[in-house]
Amino acid sequence: MARRMRFFSDNAAAACPEVMAALQAANRLDTAYDGDAFSAQLEGAFSELFETPQVTALWVATGTAANSLALAALCPPHGSIVCHRDAHIQNDECGAPEFYTHGAKLVLAEGEGAKVTPETVRAALATIRDDVHQVQPHALSITNATEYGLVYTPAEVAALGELCRERSLGFHMDGARFANAVARLDCSPADLTWRAGVDALSFGFVKNGGMSAEVLIFFGPEHRKATLYRRKRAGHLLSKGRFLAAQILAMLKDDVWLRNARSANDSAAKLAEAAGSRLVSPVEANEVFLKVSAEEAASLRARGFDFYDWGPGEARLVTSWDSDPADVEALAAAIRAL
Amino acid sequence: MARRMRFFSDNAAAACPEVMAALQAANRLDTAYDGDAFSAQLEGAFSELFETPQVTALWVATGTAANSLALAALCPPHGSIVCHRDAHIQNDECGAPEFYTHGAKLVLAEGEGAKVTPETVRAALATIRDDVHQVQPHALSITNATEYGLVYTPAEVAALGELCRERSLGFHMDGARFANAVARLDCSPADLTWRAGVDALSFGFVKNGGMSAEVLIFFGPEHRKATLYRRKRAGHLLSKGRFLAAQILAMLKDDVWLRNARSANDSAAKLAEAAGSRLVSPVEANEVFLKVSAEEAASLRARGFDFYDWGPGEARLVTSWDSDPADVEALAAAIRAL
Amino acid sequence: MARRMRFFSDNAAAACPEVMAALQAANRLDTAYDGDAFSAQLEGAFSELFETPQVTALWVATGTAANSLALAALCPPHGSIVCHRDAHIQNDECGAPEFYTHGAKLVLAEGEGAKVTPETVRAALATIRDDVHQVQPHALSITNATEYGLVYTPAEVAALGELCRERSLGFHMDGARFANAVARLDCSPADLTWRAGVDALSFGFVKNGGMSAEVLIFFGPEHRKATLYRRKRAGHLLSKGRFLAAQILAMLKDDVWLRNARSANDSAAKLAEAAGSRLVSPVEANEVFLKVSAEEAASLRARGFDFYDWGPGEARLVTSWDSDPADVEALAAAIRAL
Amino acid sequence: MARRMRFFSDNAAAACPEVMAALQAANRLDTAYDGDAFSAQLEGAFSELFETPQVTALWVATGTAANSLALAALCPPHGSIVCHRDAHIQNDECGAPEFYTHGAKLVLAEGEGAKVTPETVRAALATIRDDVHQVQPHALSITNATEYGLVYTPAEVAALGELCRERSLGFHMDGARFANAVARLDCSPADLTWRAGVDALSFGFVKNGGMSAEVLIFFGPEHRKATLYRRKRAGHLLSKGRFLAAQILAMLKDDVWLRNARSANDSAAKLAEAAGSRLVSPVEANEVFLKVSAEEAASLRARGFDFYDWGPGEARLVTSWDSDPADVEALAAAIRAL
Repeated sequence: MARRMRFFSDNAAAACPEVMAALQAANRLDTAYDGDAFSAQLEGAFSELFETPQVTALWVATGTAANSLALAALCPPHGSIVCHRDAHIQNDECGAPEFYTHGAKLVLAEGEGAKVTPETVRAALATIRDDVHQVQPHALSITNATEYGLVYTPAEVAALGELCRERSLGFHMDGARFANAVARLDCSPADLTWRAGVDALSFGFVKNGGMSAEVLIFFGPEHRKATLYRRKRAGHLLSKGRFLAAQILAMLKDDVWLRNARSANDSAAKLAEAAGSRLVSPVEANEVFLKVSAEEAASLRARGFDFYDWGPGEARLVTSWDSDPADVEALAAAIRAL
Repeated sequence: MARRMRFFSDNAAAACPEVMAALQAANRLDTAYDGDAFSAQLEGAFSELFETPQVTALWVATGTAANSLALAALCPPHGSIVCHRDAHIQNDECGAPEFYTHGAKLVLAEGEGAKVTPETVRAALATIRDDVHQVQPHALSITNATEYGLVYTPAEVAALGELCRERSLGFHMDGARFANAVARLDCSPADLTWRAGVDALSFGFVKNGGMSAEVLIFFGPEHRKATLYRRKRAGHLLSKGRFLAAQILAMLKDDVWLRNARSANDSAAKLAEAAGSRLVSPVEANEVFLKVSAEEAASLRARGFDFYDWGPGEARLVTSWDSDPADVEALAAAIRAL
Repeated sequence: MARRMRFFSDNAAAACPEVMAALQAANRLDTAYDGDAFSAQLEGAFSELFETPQVTALWVATGTAANSLALAALCPPHGSIVCHRDAHIQNDECGAPEFYTHGAKLVLAEGEGAKVTPETVRAALATIRDDVHQVQPHALSITNATEYGLVYTPAEVAALGELCRERSLGFHMDGARFANAVARLDCSPADLTWRAGVDALSFGFVKNGGMSAEVLIFFGPEHRKATLYRRKRAGHLLSKGRFLAAQILAMLKDDVWLRNARSANDSAAKLAEAAGSRLVSPVEANEVFLKVSAEEAASLRARGFDFYDWGPGEARLVTSWDSDPADVEALAAAIRAL
Repeated sequence: MARRMRFFSDNAAAACPEVMAALQAANRLDTAYDGDAFSAQLEGAFSELFETPQVTALWVATGTAANSLALAALCPPHGSIVCHRDAHIQNDECGAPEFYTHGAKLVLAEGEGAKVTPETVRAALATIRDDVHQVQPHALSITNATEYGLVYTPAEVAALGELCRERSLGFHMDGARFANAVARLDCSPADLTWRAGVDALSFGFVKNGGMSAEVLIFFGPEHRKATLYRRKRAGHLLSKGRFLAAQILAMLKDDVWLRNARSANDSAAKLAEAAGSRLVSPVEANEVFLKVSAEEAASLRARGFDFYDWGPGEARLVTSWDSDPADVEALAAAIRAL
């Protein structure tokens, strides 16, 4: 059987060479948990990247854990978190936010391409009466790049950050594809986060060439201590944490994380160009949503391309740091030929 | 500064060559989460090892997660779990069992060397009135090898298993050092577990040469489905799960897990022989507890040996699969020379 | 200042004479918790009312507790419960269902007047993918009479019950105003519940002339034992439970509960007749929603009538068992005169 | 059959006449929940009683709810609470503290008669390592009068309060029998609580002549807001809360609470005098623990006295506000005659 050309998820990609090399280099006896020499460098490295000493940076093994620990820090059990109706935390984490927050509610906001706006967030907030019979909002969570491959600009984030300050909401960014957003915007990571009012960032590495390491960032010391306990309590303090820290440091070095994200974005751009008017929404990161009939989808699959259907008449194509240029070209050609 | 010779934890050891090779081999595009070719082999491999088709085998990244998911399957929020006063789940997991079970209580039983007996378990159960004002016992959890380096024999486990059946308790074994126990007992893994009445086993690989993979085993299908949801919900369904499955398969192949455990046990036996009457308890796995004065401990550390104090006048030495024979010899000699 | 004529909530009504007399009669030394002579009669009384021996009947002090205990019985922490977007459990219990279920999610269905239909429930279910990344549906909860004063008929309930069986969902009815529904439908309580597939009923007494007693009914023994522990664990096993049981028994005797509900319904019908085309929806129980301008609302208030605004341009009037006929007449006249 | 003379629990006593009268007086239409005229007076009344304006006073229906809400305010899910091994919160609430705190642990301290001391609390604290693998202590909870009928004096409470300040622990007093303690000590309620460092008090009324009302007191505004949400979320915001507030106000008026408690204490003192050397511990409130053989216990029961066995060879006798003087005399005589 012919080789499959997979475009169904960046989660399925390989780990990049720098990560594999870092695992080898870290494979020696060291202190357990996060007492090792690699973990000790994390906060310094992220302080530099984010241009502020006020960084708490904790490795975890999954984005779901990073998101949930962030939300548990920002929202009490009797509170609620505003997010987009299509947010990963609402639809793809099997209730992890509810588990970690001990039952906080998610309040759903609207917006094209899984992007909320100050207006749609205000509309969601307006549904909540300020009385003891309703859970009150404590946080806003956005995803950048979004679940539909759009990015929030620094200005857009800042507008939401202002609303958060005004309404005393904590502000979380699910950055499973933060690298893709920064690569697209070519902006300072600081401008896209804390300077725009973000309190907590789930900074994803796994979809971008890591093996098993994500980072939870708090821009400030406030939530550090409690989150260390919560991480342990959730079984996310790995014994040999040095292997997670080493992956991350390797991807920060020489901007491997940006290089990988640019590569994925570029591949997506090629597909987007081929898709033309079939596009469901603009392609700003590494995801392409396009209109295809069931027959067209079947014909693409018959040619060896794997991808997810995304509702009736739509397909999702995801590129990754290691998408084979030949595969991308082939898929682009196949789309054009539909 | 001279090289330190570390005996403070098998958690700090390196990953073994077979594991590192397996990570390389698994580093290719595959299906995400646990849909990959490696994860698909897990249950077959453990069914063979445990001589029964009735095996549910789920990878997780930490022993704390494995233990907690097991306990959440066996005990409702309004129930309790009997365990030894010195159990890891009671003392070293920051309340993870309470988090995953949503607030079940641990009821503490006594016993030398962190080993419970049917008598001490009965005594613990006898403190619980059978009325609605007290949480009722739903499970027993033991650790094999124990936190003090002793092992339960198949017969001892079976006696506890019988008590569990009699009292309708689920039976969990924390096997963070299960390999060391099997290596010591030279018994069938089946005899030490399901044939003795064990329902769930946290099978540890990380302390024994793995990098980041543990396995939660249920001997039967009953808890499979709910645990899949609980694992995801806890953020423990890694995106690139194939890297966990690959580690485990590599350690099962050719009994690497047993070879590693035997090596650690042998190193500990050498230290035990040197310790002689200083031993606090028999050495049956890879942990050595010995009586040393503060001065003696300081003198060992001055010679380059790292280890934990374990209460006043005691020290804990832990060997691992990769303990350097020369280091072990040197430590044995230093203990003899005290 | 003139007497206010209150139509803002049946929660604010007095306790009826039979209840007050019952409290006096129960005011003697008896066994604590639910071991008393009154509590012992509950299940017999409800078995008779519901024409089945399979009744578990537990008193609690609030409808929120009854609802939440029911949902915790029907849905695991990693599951979800379908309910109407306007359901009390979603909007008015400050996340109590999430607290008691340990973080289950509510999935919102549509429908006029807070009534779901098999079609809208199916539509809600269709949004849930059958994979481990999403919480799966375990229960349906409906409110009868609804939050907008409509009733589900036995046939409507049975259609939903059939869907529940088909989809293996537990079926809960929030009957805070169950009495009003039965009074309106003039049907057998059995036909409106277990014969139509309902598994659990929160049977309200407080809004209908009770002081502080509601009843949680399970039609079957399955959830009895665990719920007894959950009730205690939630602090809802009152020490002097006999006072709750006595209230309920007094309202069951001679159908006081039906008499009270009919009285409230009749008052609402009078207001509905007066409201005519101002009605937002049909009046089938004891709540009247009508269109009034801000000026009209102010004018009613100026005449001494208290009620809630219910969104812009709407008002909610609630009658109770003890609504003063003169007040009702006066309000009806005032509405006609607007 | 002859009348039984019940000494098994003050929970089983009747409600006192002032409470019954207050229920009648409150039986009129008023605002729902805690918006009524009675609830509005609570904090003023307790501010006066406790000689400080800094009082948050919230009614709930059970002591378990009061205790659990207090502990949830003082301890995060990843923390622990020190209490006596025999504490009600450990043994008699079916895990309610674990439910409300979302899984905090109870750490058990020793002490005669269920009384902890600064030394035994320090010993309990000393078992907790200050690292992320163990839940850290956040609160101390004591019971006054204790589960064995002893009282803490203001000086004893103050010594514990000082330890709490030193170790940054919140300080909770389970005052299910607070009235009995104050009656015994004849001290200012303020001296026994906030002036001695107590942050939260569960002030019991039900065992002392109330029907269904307890009060949760915080000495300070800090925990007020979150506790209002937690109370609602737990289903403890009763619709007709005025009936709870009215009971409490009636018992505060003219010191009915003290009169009732003195009466119960006096009855216990009479039994204690009769018991003499049979006493297991001093009788300082309304509970009497005495040594009796199985035969002696049987003989007392044969004469019509009801009470609980309390372990082998011991019995517990509890008096209440309404213990019949003739019954008390009869029991005293029967004890003397053993």
